[in-house]
Amino acid sequence: MRTQVGIVGAGPAGLLLAHLLHRAGIESVILEAKSRQHVEERIRAGLLEQGTVDILTETGLGDRLHREGLPHEGIELRFDGQGHRIDLHGLTGRRVMIYGQQEVVKDLIAARLAQGRPLLFEVEEVALHDLDSDCPRITFRHGGAETMLHCDVIAGCDGFHGICREAIPAGVLKIYERAYPFAWLGILAAAPPASHELIYARHERGFALATMRSNTLARHYIQCRPEEDVAAWSDDRIWAELHARMADRDGHSPIKEGPILQKGVTAMRSFVVEPMRHGRLFLAGDAAHIVPPTGAKGMNLAVADIIVLARALEAFYRGRGMALLDAYSATALRRVWKAQRFSWWMTSLLHRFDGADPFEHKVQLAELDYVCSSAAASLTLAENYVGLPLETG
Amino acid sequence: MRTQVGIVGAGPAGLLLAHLLHRAGIESVILEAKSRQHVEERIRAGLLEQGTVDILTETGLGDRLHREGLPHEGIELRFDGQGHRIDLHGLTGRRVMIYGQQEVVKDLIAARLAQGRPLLFEVEEVALHDLDSDCPRITFRHGGAETMLHCDVIAGCDGFHGICREAIPAGVLKIYERAYPFAWLGILAAAPPASHELIYARHERGFALATMRSNTLARHYIQCRPEEDVAAWSDDRIWAELHARMADRDGHSPIKEGPILQKGVTAMRSFVVEPMRHGRLFLAGDAAHIVPPTGAKGMNLAVADIIVLARALEAFYRGRGMALLDAYSATALRRVWKAQRFSWWMTSLLHRFDGADPFEHKVQLAELDYVCSSAAASLTLAENYVGLPLETG
Repeated sequence: MRTQVGIVGAGPAGLLLAHLLHRAGIESVILEAKSRQHVEERIRAGLLEQGTVDILTETGLGDRLHREGLPHEGIELRFDGQGHRIDLHGLTGRRVMIYGQQEVVKDLIAARLAQGRPLLFEVEEVALHDLDSDCPRITFRHGGAETMLHCDVIAGCDGFHGICREAIPAGVLKIYERAYPFAWLGILAAAPPASHELIYARHERGFALATMRSNTLARHYIQCRPEEDVAAWSDDRIWAELHARMADRDGHSPIKEGPILQKGVTAMRSFVVEPMRHGRLFLAGDAAHIVPPTGAKGMNLAVADIIVLARALEAFYRGRGMALLDAYSATALRRVWKAQRFSWWMTSLLHRFDGADPFEHKVQLAELDYVCSSAAASLTLAENYVGLPLETG
Repeated sequence: MRTQVGIVGAGPAGLLLAHLLHRAGIESVILEAKSRQHVEERIRAGLLEQGTVDILTETGLGDRLHREGLPHEGIELRFDGQGHRIDLHGLTGRRVMIYGQQEVVKDLIAARLAQGRPLLFEVEEVALHDLDSDCPRITFRHGGAETMLHCDVIAGCDGFHGICREAIPAGVLKIYERAYPFAWLGILAAAPPASHELIYARHERGFALATMRSNTLARHYIQCRPEEDVAAWSDDRIWAELHARMADRDGHSPIKEGPILQKGVTAMRSFVVEPMRHGRLFLAGDAAHIVPPTGAKGMNLAVADIIVLARALEAFYRGRGMALLDAYSATALRRVWKAQRFSWWMTSLLHRFDGADPFEHKVQLAELDYVCSSAAASLTLAENYVGLPLETG
């Protein structure tokens, strides 16, 4: 079996890469360890930068996105019991869109299947070979049969726990990481959103975020301990905590209760490997970097990686050589580090740090005050939140 | 002996307060522990925000300042061997002025003496009494005589090590502080400046700052250990270190050598007390707060305090009651915390932190990259550096 680009992972990164390559007339095969149902129901990120919306729209994937997605023109920062709106659209001329990652995945899978191009689910024993050569190979087992896939290039889009990054020899990658002393307890509830826009709350009891998946489905998070046991959180306890952290000075909470459909704990981690490439293997998305979810950058960063990688592969197949592929890692990493900085900063700005001394606490409040009172500082938040301009190398 | 406002300390804060009060027809007495020569020769800060220049100019103290001061319209940030100019004037329409604190002090002392108003040097055994009453008193010894000064109000302008803050009963003030794991080794040299503007350098060997007092007097700093022994730093070693930290990618250093006239170590500390008032005692400047020198905010913050305090005292003596005096601490502290945040941020951005992990290191570089590549981020630096607008309550 032979293809041009072997893609490991059918998350947003791998699926979008296959989609962009197909439009450029480049063949690929996608291998996914999980089932179609699993990847289509896996609830992850839910906020698309305008650049992400634009690439999906330009490549024919905008219909349902624009019909069902909720465009947002601002966010609210809430601290000391008062809300402060950051006017994303007024400041930057750009918007973000609420649309679940799994919906993007569904749209991409539907497009791939409509194109009749290979997308294999429940693939087992995936292994990479000859990455240093011009003919890398992927071996795997599918439907009981062992298969060898010969490729020109392999794209490692299989996430933080995937096999691609692990296939790179020890010592090649430099790892940068940061663990945070907290996590997020998240719920999905059959309830209206707290507000028509997201509310990010900094409270003495800890951070809280009120967001949504639709006008009838609320998604809320509260800062918790990294080892938090979900079982210890009854529905009543979760609502009480959300109300307490979101309440204004009069004690009024914007949170609306409803049946809780899902509960889970999201770890907080910053992680980057450099370079994002080894031989003919190119890493993209979570396989190469993780951001804490505060700035909603994870999926958007994967999309930005893929745009850079797809253009480089197109140049390669049009006979323009390896130059853009050789530049891929450095080009992608410039944006990755900007997004890492922003995600770290948003996280530091809004969370309660148990070890923080009173000075740090006051500086955190001064920073929030500054972000909300200076047009320039509001714009630094806004331009990162809607997504910095894409440099494709 | 009786006055309206008793002022402890003849630094920029105490002297400016007396000057502004005199112009408003309010009497004061200034008590200073050191000699006139000492305070006129004490080398401290050297960069005035435009708001500081404005208040001095508007109140008749601008002649020598505008003749001898060096207006600066930008600064350079240097990292990875490359310089990036922040166009302060282009971004904000405002400038800063290089003019030594001791020159401001000389001008203020000369004005005070020309006005024939009381300014006592080498005052000993200063003590404050009855701060909770409407008639606070200061006792002191001057020229061998013990004196009691009856006041309506006392202004504590005697710096971080002064007696005024210490005169407030234990438990009244809440203290916020941060020690930094480094200090600055500073030199004054008979040499031309490295550039016509300041250069702030972040280097693997540590921070360096190239500044000036005049076109023939350079003032340079290098990050060192808090307990650094100046004796261990020969002139040659200092110049070599400055060259190394300031060099561009070709190894060229902008530093010009000359005879070193002074060497000293400056501690780095963030410190705030709240409130900045106890009864009829009002603290201003370093008596209430210290910033690390990176953002050049120390003297400017003292001047901002004094503008707020002078207006409140004027309202009080014009029969408008205590309202502005009661608001003084909260009004001043809003600016103090903004300046604390900025000074902490500039310090964090540019110094080498020995305990930093590789992730922090990369985030620091990403932040520098962002500050220099985003107009909004450049403006956040610039608007703080030239001085945020003054709110006088």
